[in-house]
Amino acid sequence: MAAAAPPPPPAPVPEAPIDVPRGSTPMGYPLFARIRLAHPTDVPHIHKLIHQMSVFERLADQCSATEASLAATLFTSPPFKSFTVFLLEVSSAPFPNDAHSSNQFYHPTVKTLNLDLPIDDPESHVFRSSGGDATVAGFVLFFPNYSTFLAKPGFYVEDLFVRECYRRKGIGKMLLSAVAKQAVKMGFGRVEWVVLDWNVNAIKFYEEMGAKIMQEWRICRLTGDALQAYHDA
Amino acid sequence: MAAAAPPPPPAPVPEAPIDVPRGSTPMGYPLFARIRLAHPTDVPHIHKLIHQMSVFERLADQCSATEASLAATLFTSPPFKSFTVFLLEVSSAPFPNDAHSSNQFYHPTVKTLNLDLPIDDPESHVFRSSGGDATVAGFVLFFPNYSTFLAKPGFYVEDLFVRECYRRKGIGKMLLSAVAKQAVKMGFGRVEWVVLDWNVNAIKFYEEMGAKIMQEWRICRLTGDALQAYHDA
Repeated sequence: MAAAAPPPPPAPVPEAPIDVPRGSTPMGYPLFARIRLAHPTDVPHIHKLIHQMSVFERLADQCSATEASLAATLFTSPPFKSFTVFLLEVSSAPFPNDAHSSNQFYHPTVKTLNLDLPIDDPESHVFRSSGGDATVAGFVLFFPNYSTFLAKPGFYVEDLFVRECYRRKGIGKMLLSAVAKQAVKMGFGRVEWVVLDWNVNAIKFYEEMGAKIMQEWRICRLTGDALQAYHDA
Repeated sequence: MAAAAPPPPPAPVPEAPIDVPRGSTPMGYPLFARIRLAHPTDVPHIHKLIHQMSVFERLADQCSATEASLAATLFTSPPFKSFTVFLLEVSSAPFPNDAHSSNQFYHPTVKTLNLDLPIDDPESHVFRSSGGDATVAGFVLFFPNYSTFLAKPGFYVEDLFVRECYRRKGIGKMLLSAVAKQAVKMGFGRVEWVVLDWNVNAIKFYEEMGAKIMQEWRICRLTGDALQAYHDA
């Protein structure tokens, strides 16, 4: 499916609890979050995230992506030139400055989230990052689009997804902000994505991030047999 | 602006007039139409077409494209890998099989339109094709997008425009069909574009071409100062 699985509005950063629980610090529980470019070795995680997103959107029957089909179609161009994936990883320990996560295309974005309770991640073993101790918590997939009126490229965000136990902590905002920041850095004119008109929480979240909702435009889609009919056009 | 300037539904091919007018043939007036990939030398025509489209859409104040900005941002990748332009040229004489219009990426699509009246093109001198006798009548600008559910690329059509005196002759359909055919050829899963919800003629035309109008999705756009604010995010 197109589009941004609706991240809920970010919760305000919790203040340190007055009655400090055992094992925590006065700052609460720090969770270290890092955004990095995905690599081909991340395809199994990307596949699982896409599948979870389709279940969340109640469109699992429409999701035919496999690890093989993703591997064959992603990572075919340098990052930002075509289809690009940012992964967001979390860890209870600070991230090292390692070569695995940084390259000439992108220097990872790192942020410390101060939580009032630790997160119980029932799938941490499934989403263990290839790098080691980190856990994959979400992703964003985007690619360049073009505005003839601006005569400039932009980015179109096809998917934005945060795993359930990591929602309402600002991770969706962190991912979308990273795309917007990259767009500014590249001199691009726009970042666009789509949202379901009944998803008022997501719309509110996007408006708070500065987006305008275009009410008059409708997407036209030619697919399946209707598209195949053009084989001999 | 995004999207497909609304081509009207194609008129049925006129039959040969019974009372054959002087100078015509029993087939009416043949108009030879050819779709080819645009080259950097076509930028002046592309620029004029974009400007006319913005006037047609009553959004000319939003169009800041110049020949220089288009030249700097288009033609930066091989055709179909990124932003791609098809030009539709017309001529009163059949098109030769010349090297100018054909290359390893795309073999031109040619069609003969049988008109009941010749077209009076008040701007034929402005839109004279760089190749010689042909006249540029319209264009389509498109680029790859990606569906994670299909794990396949598709094409997104940013602009489709036919000059006023060439409308209602099947040219818009010819341009959109050429994109759809190319998508099928490349094994892509979708062709998508947007339409204004009040443009019932365009919606009817697109539905007749096999497209489904997605009623629930809304476009979110982050641009201008709201985007620039992410510079330091």
